[in-house]
Amino acid sequence: QDGLERLRANTIFESFVIGVIIASALLIGAKTYEEASRFDQWLVWMDTAVTLFFLFEILVRMAAEKRFLNFFRNGWNIFDFIIVVASLVPINDSEMVLVARLLRVFRVLRLVSMIPELRILLAALVKSIPRMGYVALLMFIIFYIYAAIGSFMFNGIDPVLWGNISISMLTLFRVATFEDWTDVMYDTMEVYPYSWVFYLTFIFLTAFVFLNMMIGIVLDVMQK
Amino acid sequence: QDGLERLRANTIFESFVIGVIIASALLIGAKTYEEASRFDQWLVWMDTAVTLFFLFEILVRMAAEKRFLNFFRNGWNIFDFIIVVASLVPINDSEMVLVARLLRVFRVLRLVSMIPELRILLAALVKSIPRMGYVALLMFIIFYIYAAIGSFMFNGIDPVLWGNISISMLTLFRVATFEDWTDVMYDTMEVYPYSWVFYLTFIFLTAFVFLNMMIGIVLDVMQK
Amino acid sequence: QDGLERLRANTIFESFVIGVIIASALLIGAKTYEEASRFDQWLVWMDTAVTLFFLFEILVRMAAEKRFLNFFRNGWNIFDFIIVVASLVPINDSEMVLVARLLRVFRVLRLVSMIPELRILLAALVKSIPRMGYVALLMFIIFYIYAAIGSFMFNGIDPVLWGNISISMLTLFRVATFEDWTDVMYDTMEVYPYSWVFYLTFIFLTAFVFLNMMIGIVLDVMQK
Amino acid sequence: QDGLERLRANTIFESFVIGVIIASALLIGAKTYEEASRFDQWLVWMDTAVTLFFLFEILVRMAAEKRFLNFFRNGWNIFDFIIVVASLVPINDSEMVLVARLLRVFRVLRLVSMIPELRILLAALVKSIPRMGYVALLMFIIFYIYAAIGSFMFNGIDPVLWGNISISMLTLFRVATFEDWTDVMYDTMEVYPYSWVFYLTFIFLTAFVFLNMMIGIVLDVMQK
Ligand code: NA
Ligand code: NA
Repeated sequence: QDGLERLRANTIFESFVIGVIIASALLIGAKTYEEASRFDQWLVWMDTAVTLFFLFEILVRMAAEKRFLNFFRNGWNIFDFIIVVASLVPINDSEMVLVARLLRVFRVLRLVSMIPELRILLAALVKSIPRMGYVALLMFIIFYIYAAIGSFMFNGIDPVLWGNISISMLTLFRVATFEDWTDVMYDTMEVYPYSWVFYLTFIFLTAFVFLNMMIGIVLDVMQK
Repeated sequence: QDGLERLRANTIFESFVIGVIIASALLIGAKTYEEASRFDQWLVWMDTAVTLFFLFEILVRMAAEKRFLNFFRNGWNIFDFIIVVASLVPINDSEMVLVARLLRVFRVLRLVSMIPELRILLAALVKSIPRMGYVALLMFIIFYIYAAIGSFMFNGIDPVLWGNISISMLTLFRVATFEDWTDVMYDTMEVYPYSWVFYLTFIFLTAFVFLNMMIGIVLDVMQK
Repeated sequence: QDGLERLRANTIFESFVIGVIIASALLIGAKTYEEASRFDQWLVWMDTAVTLFFLFEILVRMAAEKRFLNFFRNGWNIFDFIIVVASLVPINDSEMVLVARLLRVFRVLRLVSMIPELRILLAALVKSIPRMGYVALLMFIIFYIYAAIGSFMFNGIDPVLWGNISISMLTLFRVATFEDWTDVMYDTMEVYPYSWVFYLTFIFLTAFVFLNMMIGIVLDVMQK
Repeated sequence: QDGLERLRANTIFESFVIGVIIASALLIGAKTYEEASRFDQWLVWMDTAVTLFFLFEILVRMAAEKRFLNFFRNGWNIFDFIIVVASLVPINDSEMVLVARLLRVFRVLRLVSMIPELRILLAALVKSIPRMGYVALLMFIIFYIYAAIGSFMFNGIDPVLWGNISISMLTLFRVATFEDWTDVMYDTMEVYPYSWVFYLTFIFLTAFVFLNMMIGIVLDVMQK
């Protein structure tokens, strides 16, 4: 067990694991090229090798623990465990091939759990989420109200954009990203000439709330 | 009266009110789906139930006050009162059905008056408005001058975009959001090859004023 | 002369001047509406009245000075003087009607010279320009180099976008605002499949310099 | 040698060098105009003059050093040396005319090495790069995972946008800049109605990471 622990903590072994993760990422990328179909069999073999290595590596880490259950006390271990187990789905099973492929994509995320700096970065990102909670709720309320109004008023004009409240929220998100928003507006202005009020108030409201959130976060973080 | 006051301050009762508000929001959303027409009668009943509950709740809060008029001393109470009264418009009145529906949408806003954190957030947002007052005026002057020039010069090129000063301001807002602004520019450049000066100076001016406003706000808030 | 000085400093008189400026702005706006052609004669009279009032007001301010030349020691006075003199061009002269109209538009700027808060705001804006000087020069160098490369390489693909170095700079500005930039890129990628490198490095470079400029300004202002 | 050192440090000589650099930039710009073909011979002469002057200037600076190799101890000297040597490729050699022209474009960069303020600015920019390293890696992982998923799922819908993982990354960069991203989304929503989840999570993730990076940089720089 001491040997296993030493292996796990070995920087060369760690670099090798990172190397295998990058190799598995490149494998996933390679499969998306049409030209790769010639190397199909080779890619399957490589994939099996990567899968087995990941299984071996996680078993090493489990065995290196003093008590087996300690392994699952660490969030990142659970994270790795799920990714490794999920990618055990065989890739040459024709029915689940898409699922198996998608699950393998998430192996790239193991880079985050392997590189300490990325782990710190992600932890900082996750910690900053609650700070945005109530602003997100307020944003949602604004979107919901405008989407309800939009789908009541403009449903008859263009059901593809305003057919129901969820489609309307998607349309409003598009307006909030300024993506061809004038096309959406000009369409409704033909029926309701004053509907620009709807779009302009929406844009000002969301931009205003967003900017205040940004400023709030900067100030909030600075006081610590 | 003591009992009413206790009821009003009861967290379970408050949670129940929030639950009803969310239910009323979902009702509004549900109505925008075509499939909902089957449940039309059921939705009207639900709506009546929500309306009556809101009426009951606001009467409880009024009765809980020592003096009736104290109720209207609180801005949020007035806010709630207007929303509740406005949504008393019957929804099955075929003439006012759209108005009744729209007024019901604003019930979602009661979430803001019920959740203290949102109330604080909104108060902070409202307090930050005057700080932007003079910058907004300056922005308006820039827009007005460019819109006047635009509608004098480009009116003959595309009256849909430059027909009069208000349409021109809308077009300029579109340019400021970078929404297909080059299409607008290329059109006028065919007649006035140097009209890119108009757009570029406008974009630089508004971006410059906007960025300075942002920096000003950050610094202004930080000094407190 | 004492009476004139009192008149100039009188708040009612000042408010009246601001009122006349707003009225002249509305006049300018009104002229852009087609329906206004019915009131044409009336609008010309109004314009004459405004012109004469502005002339009267500036003469009052000149006469109120102890020594005539002191008037021109103040930058805002010169600003007002130029605007007032420029709008003396008669508006019913058919040849210069467009010039006369355009010059009248700038009367709106007198709002800035009349309202102290706007004057302070504008002074702050002007003061922040030199801080951006060298960053602007660096940006210009980046634009110039990319525009030169662009017009050497892509001239044959689309001369409307890449015909010469100035047109190329306009196209690059469009790319920097993300305005249909992929259309520009896809066009050149048909001939040079790797030309996305050109656009992506350009976008990253300009965004990087711009963001650093923003951060630099915030820090710079904060240290004062 | 003393005389050479004095010449190098002479402000008039420095200004003259800057003037020649600007002239060479204008020469490059001029060549992109069709009308310039009349002055072709003249432009070649001018180019030879500039090339020779740059060669002369760099030789002066080399000779002014106490020991020849000291010249290459300064990064900016190497920078200048490469630019000057690279533009020795003759411009009237018909085979390499494009390469020669492109290499001459980089002469404009000598402005950066000549003007101290730009040199400081660029040094500051370069110093701020490592700070973004791990965020850039995280961004790349997000792009890679989404691009892999995108090219597995949407390859059949539009191979031009999702043909392989590199094209998919380019498409995702386009989505991140909000450039006609809804067109991309509506296409895939016709086959997978819930594919908006793909785009919205992607936009929120990248925007979230980007904003946190911005805030992190501001705070990081402020603590120094
Ligand atoms: Na856009
Ligand atoms: Na667009």
